[in-house]
Amino acid sequence: MGMVGGGQGAFIGAVHRIAAAIDGQIELVCGAFSSNAERSVASGAALFLPESRCYQSYEEMFQRESQLPEDQRMEFVAIVTPNHLHFPVAKMAFEYGFHVMSDKPATFDLNEALELEKLVTKHGRLYGLTHTYNGYPLVKQAKHMVESGELGNVVKVIAEYTQGWLASKDDEGGKQAAWRLDPKQAGISCCMGDIGVHAANLAEYVTGLEIANICSDLTATVAGRTLDDDGTVLLKFNNGAKGVLLSSQIQIGDENNLRIRVIGDKKAIEWQQIEPNTLWVKENGKPTQQVRTGVGEFCEAAQKAMRTPPGHPEGYLEAFANIYVNFADQISAFKAGETCDNQTFDVPGIREAIRGMAFIENVVAADKSDSKWQEFTILPSA
Amino acid sequence: MGMVGGGQGAFIGAVHRIAAAIDGQIELVCGAFSSNAERSVASGAALFLPESRCYQSYEEMFQRESQLPEDQRMEFVAIVTPNHLHFPVAKMAFEYGFHVMSDKPATFDLNEALELEKLVTKHGRLYGLTHTYNGYPLVKQAKHMVESGELGNVVKVIAEYTQGWLASKDDEGGKQAAWRLDPKQAGISCCMGDIGVHAANLAEYVTGLEIANICSDLTATVAGRTLDDDGTVLLKFNNGAKGVLLSSQIQIGDENNLRIRVIGDKKAIEWQQIEPNTLWVKENGKPTQQVRTGVGEFCEAAQKAMRTPPGHPEGYLEAFANIYVNFADQISAFKAGETCDNQTFDVPGIREAIRGMAFIENVVAADKSDSKWQEFTILPSA
Amino acid sequence: MGMVGGGQGAFIGAVHRIAAAIDGQIELVCGAFSSNAERSVASGAALFLPESRCYQSYEEMFQRESQLPEDQRMEFVAIVTPNHLHFPVAKMAFEYGFHVMSDKPATFDLNEALELEKLVTKHGRLYGLTHTYNGYPLVKQAKHMVESGELGNVVKVIAEYTQGWLASKDDEGGKQAAWRLDPKQAGISCCMGDIGVHAANLAEYVTGLEIANICSDLTATVAGRTLDDDGTVLLKFNNGAKGVLLSSQIQIGDENNLRIRVIGDKKAIEWQQIEPNTLWVKENGKPTQQVRTGVGEFCEAAQKAMRTPPGHPEGYLEAFANIYVNFADQISAFKAGETCDNQTFDVPGIREAIRGMAFIENVVAADKSDSKWQEFTILPSA
Amino acid sequence: MGMVGGGQGAFIGAVHRIAAAIDGQIELVCGAFSSNAERSVASGAALFLPESRCYQSYEEMFQRESQLPEDQRMEFVAIVTPNHLHFPVAKMAFEYGFHVMSDKPATFDLNEALELEKLVTKHGRLYGLTHTYNGYPLVKQAKHMVESGELGNVVKVIAEYTQGWLASKDDEGGKQAAWRLDPKQAGISCCMGDIGVHAANLAEYVTGLEIANICSDLTATVAGRTLDDDGTVLLKFNNGAKGVLLSSQIQIGDENNLRIRVIGDKKAIEWQQIEPNTLWVKENGKPTQQVRTGVGEFCEAAQKAMRTPPGHPEGYLEAFANIYVNFADQISAFKAGETCDNQTFDVPGIREAIRGMAFIENVVAADKSDSKWQEFTILPSA
Repeated sequence: MGMVGGGQGAFIGAVHRIAAAIDGQIELVCGAFSSNAERSVASGAALFLPESRCYQSYEEMFQRESQLPEDQRMEFVAIVTPNHLHFPVAKMAFEYGFHVMSDKPATFDLNEALELEKLVTKHGRLYGLTHTYNGYPLVKQAKHMVESGELGNVVKVIAEYTQGWLASKDDEGGKQAAWRLDPKQAGISCCMGDIGVHAANLAEYVTGLEIANICSDLTATVAGRTLDDDGTVLLKFNNGAKGVLLSSQIQIGDENNLRIRVIGDKKAIEWQQIEPNTLWVKENGKPTQQVRTGVGEFCEAAQKAMRTPPGHPEGYLEAFANIYVNFADQISAFKAGETCDNQTFDVPGIREAIRGMAFIENVVAADKSDSKWQEFTILPSA
Repeated sequence: MGMVGGGQGAFIGAVHRIAAAIDGQIELVCGAFSSNAERSVASGAALFLPESRCYQSYEEMFQRESQLPEDQRMEFVAIVTPNHLHFPVAKMAFEYGFHVMSDKPATFDLNEALELEKLVTKHGRLYGLTHTYNGYPLVKQAKHMVESGELGNVVKVIAEYTQGWLASKDDEGGKQAAWRLDPKQAGISCCMGDIGVHAANLAEYVTGLEIANICSDLTATVAGRTLDDDGTVLLKFNNGAKGVLLSSQIQIGDENNLRIRVIGDKKAIEWQQIEPNTLWVKENGKPTQQVRTGVGEFCEAAQKAMRTPPGHPEGYLEAFANIYVNFADQISAFKAGETCDNQTFDVPGIREAIRGMAFIENVVAADKSDSKWQEFTILPSA
Repeated sequence: MGMVGGGQGAFIGAVHRIAAAIDGQIELVCGAFSSNAERSVASGAALFLPESRCYQSYEEMFQRESQLPEDQRMEFVAIVTPNHLHFPVAKMAFEYGFHVMSDKPATFDLNEALELEKLVTKHGRLYGLTHTYNGYPLVKQAKHMVESGELGNVVKVIAEYTQGWLASKDDEGGKQAAWRLDPKQAGISCCMGDIGVHAANLAEYVTGLEIANICSDLTATVAGRTLDDDGTVLLKFNNGAKGVLLSSQIQIGDENNLRIRVIGDKKAIEWQQIEPNTLWVKENGKPTQQVRTGVGEFCEAAQKAMRTPPGHPEGYLEAFANIYVNFADQISAFKAGETCDNQTFDVPGIREAIRGMAFIENVVAADKSDSKWQEFTILPSA
Repeated sequence: MGMVGGGQGAFIGAVHRIAAAIDGQIELVCGAFSSNAERSVASGAALFLPESRCYQSYEEMFQRESQLPEDQRMEFVAIVTPNHLHFPVAKMAFEYGFHVMSDKPATFDLNEALELEKLVTKHGRLYGLTHTYNGYPLVKQAKHMVESGELGNVVKVIAEYTQGWLASKDDEGGKQAAWRLDPKQAGISCCMGDIGVHAANLAEYVTGLEIANICSDLTATVAGRTLDDDGTVLLKFNNGAKGVLLSSQIQIGDENNLRIRVIGDKKAIEWQQIEPNTLWVKENGKPTQQVRTGVGEFCEAAQKAMRTPPGHPEGYLEAFANIYVNFADQISAFKAGETCDNQTFDVPGIREAIRGMAFIENVVAADKSDSKWQEFTILPSA
């Protein structure tokens, strides 16, 4: 793979590289790691890349790589730039015939996402989106339990993603805080756009349902902020189930509390990202079951996502790697001319890109409305 | 004390008797334990009461007890009847000059609660309400931490009270289920009236705030039900803090999951009833603290509410007893002619009775509205 | 019941009174609460006892109570004096025809315990010993699971009872510390005598096995102590199972960490006193089961020991009450001339008294030996 | 790096490869992956290695690699063969001038380990041993807290490593079980050699102390076994602290329960591998602190070992990678002619190899002795 963004000191670029490397199926062969040509090249050198493939810009990278013999050029590009570049880089990658694995969010807004969907169709290249939390084995097992009917009909979903790191004025100094709170860089939402969307994605991924109606209440808790740092969204799903989504960046002391509860009319499940190797399965009148990675039997997707025996914890980087290794398999299928859609390979893609961007726009619009329930729509804005 | 209701086989009557007995300050001296005269007397006998004080009806009890010499007659009555009798029994108790400790809910509806308030004022007798969960020592400590400013300004509150025991049609057989789901016996709400109101009370008790606005979504999840078995309420408090209240009786596998998170701009706290001897205190960039009953220093109210040294768990019955023992102290102050209001003695009373009944009426009304936010009002219905 | 000891300010006396009161089957009718006659009477008054039954000494109490008409006199005595008086008070109680419920330890040493056994036989009165931890419902369920064979053959037992309160020199000031560290008052052991013996009792109670051989290593960790404040004992049980007993009063920060793991060749269980309403059941290749009080089906003894529905935690005082309520039933059987042995009524008694005192003497003797394994013997010392 | 062993289907080889790859500092360039020449080559191909560097035997690999230009040949070899080959492969690697990272155990017995030490000295090459559990960031922080005196004097250590996977006869079928239970392949111990030694290593690593005396009780629980599947070892450390080491493969339902408690006279700490991102810090009279990776301040070694922000769990593979990345730094120092001892680079090495093999021989010898305490010695056997 090649990489755009992720130069020295950038956190998420390193995560993508680790994730891609873990299973030995993907090799980083080139990159344009920074918008600063010099830093880009230096970053590539620090990663032991040959000088010839440390490019000064992503434009140069796509041009030059596309001219290499097929068995030498990169097969796909990982996009880990600032958000506003996700779309233009993906667009150009497609135009030069490369597949794309994009960091989240897919685009700057819904309009771009809808545009991107057309490009995916037009160019016929693969598009993956790192909705990392889908990569955890027990999330896949939870999804399987819903699909197989073990939970009965889903009647309620509670999804939380709460953090505390933006709890006060004093927390606004760092680079990570600055762009997220700036409408020009972050778009119309901070909290919902950054993390609420992960909770929504997880809820839809695990249940296989779609959010159909919402009632939204967003808050800019800390004085002086124009974007939300906290919010709660009431949900109705397309099967009639109710739900609640809680998201916050001001729940002081919370680390990265992504947690989901899915309640069926037979059983309920509960999972939290902070201790990802445990899945609680609940039933009335019976002991709660502590399902643990590696212990007992699992669906194929979960099993494929586990690397270690019982009691050897895997975490965030392995979940991330599971997105990448599935994408590698998807590319192999593409090359072999076999079925290669995202769903078959369990890779979040353009569908999730659009629903994610639509979620953000819907909750922001619903927050501004005085009436309670709003339909969840996917419409380009004027 | 005397008791009305709580005959053989009744669960909550036994709980009140244990709670009253634990600290050796209150003695059960008489009772009218059943609307069935024979069963009433038999129940009293089983409790080792002298025959002369096992009454056939509560009317008889009030009459006869009030004629006993002052140092022999009961001092207060514990009301543990079916809900619709709470008000008439309390009314008659006041008329005969007795104090009242009532099981929750205080009355059948808000109108009765407002009527009851007038009777409390008119007769000048003490009125306690067993909002049990206020009785836990670490709930009192949590309240103290908010009051003392340790948390900073409260900016968010998440209160949950979820159970699973009404998750299916098959769960409707029992006596406990039957009356709760019947509007004639339960009033306008099942889930919110039975348990949601506890979560609301706990939120107000711990924070010292009042719910000012709500947005409510109630659901009768199981087919055929006319009352809510699940609901979520968005909250605004009178200081501007936001909140969410989640309550459910269909969260299958949940026992009695009463849990509160109070987020301040300095620290946050988290407590759950199922493991009541632990209070989590969170702060950004610091280890979360596991505060445990008996370990370290506590406010006076919390300390008074602990009976055992560290590591000797206390539970629900002790929390219940804490309401009773405070009420006993309140009666002593009353007799001594000293200050004896409920707040001073940390005994839930007529204020909580009214806010509780108002909560139920407000969330039911708000659920029916199409507009998002409703003011929380305390108004007699026409 | 009458009480000897437990005057104002004494912790364990209050616990016994609460425990006896909880289920409304036992009434405190008299007492000799202190060796100081004046304090004894004042303590009785504070408990609302009639002056006539607040005695100046236990000798007086036994004499005077035994002269009351049978239906008025106390039926049994609760002994909550300092340890060295447990034996003489029990002895005199028997001589006057009263049953005895004694706080732990039963006697000052094994010789006295063997003597006591003779008195139990001679006088034919009932003798109970408050090995409180046996009173927890899930301990009874654990015992039942072993008995019923659900665990298969027991192959290993790990019992821990660790505290931190004697971790340093500075902790020696208080009254509780002083007598425990003084050989004249505490006998030959501090840590093992005070708490290790509870762990041993729990291991034998749950498994139904007897400790047959031991290898013991005791330590006086803090400089200047002559008695053990920490120790580990390797165990062999009479079925060949191995075990370990860890006990400590210097595990700084530990509250009252009594914990047991019983490993069978089919399943294993794990329970800890600090969170007593949960029992973990483990099996290879299956989810661990979280058994919770009130949820699902339980053996009769466990069911009888639960007072509240699921999710309403019970604790230490209720466990204590379970010993008392079983003792009340045992006395009723005695009076009715029915079978009334301790085992039938699940009341720890003289057998546990002797094994407990023998445990202390055996571990102290084994600690002094240079050879590894010692037989666990029950022999009067010369 | 090159690899010996770890062909297709071998678990631990894959773990080493992932661990080496994670941080992008180490590249797998060649291997002799199987004693079967054909399988060796096929395994290399599956790992995308060029045919020329998939060797048929490790002898061939050392010869041919040593003839490559210095900047092209492998720099070190990872040894992941069956245990009896660890020594001869390491020996030959040294003879050809390569550094060695060996899977655990270092050698088949203590004699070989002592021999290996001489080879390390003689050839002046680096030697690392994957005592993986040392790689967890909070283990390093724990070590730092002891070193810095935050715990005060260490007075007690409890180390456990218990599993359940060999609990019954039926579990003996698999390949993993077969060799471990076979004295010819496993040596003199199963449980202590396989996992007990990790607990011993962890205890010494965290405390900086050395085990000085032991009392050992090993058991072959399941009928027909000649090697231990369970054992408990009493410990005395060289500073006088006491300890207990519990290890088992028959604690049914236990996954990989490596857990350590270090008790100082000021504070105590507790950590368990199954939830490695939490470290509990205990103190008398204060709330227990839940230290979490990424939250707050850490010693340099711990900080270096964390890759992700708070709430993004890292696990076993990352701990493993921390050993590798430190080894890579150590090799860089070696090449630069700088200080490059194992301790400086926090890489377990020959010292740990010898103490580990000695631990096994000492506990087996002590188990056979009838006297209680044995000195922990490091002596070649006759």
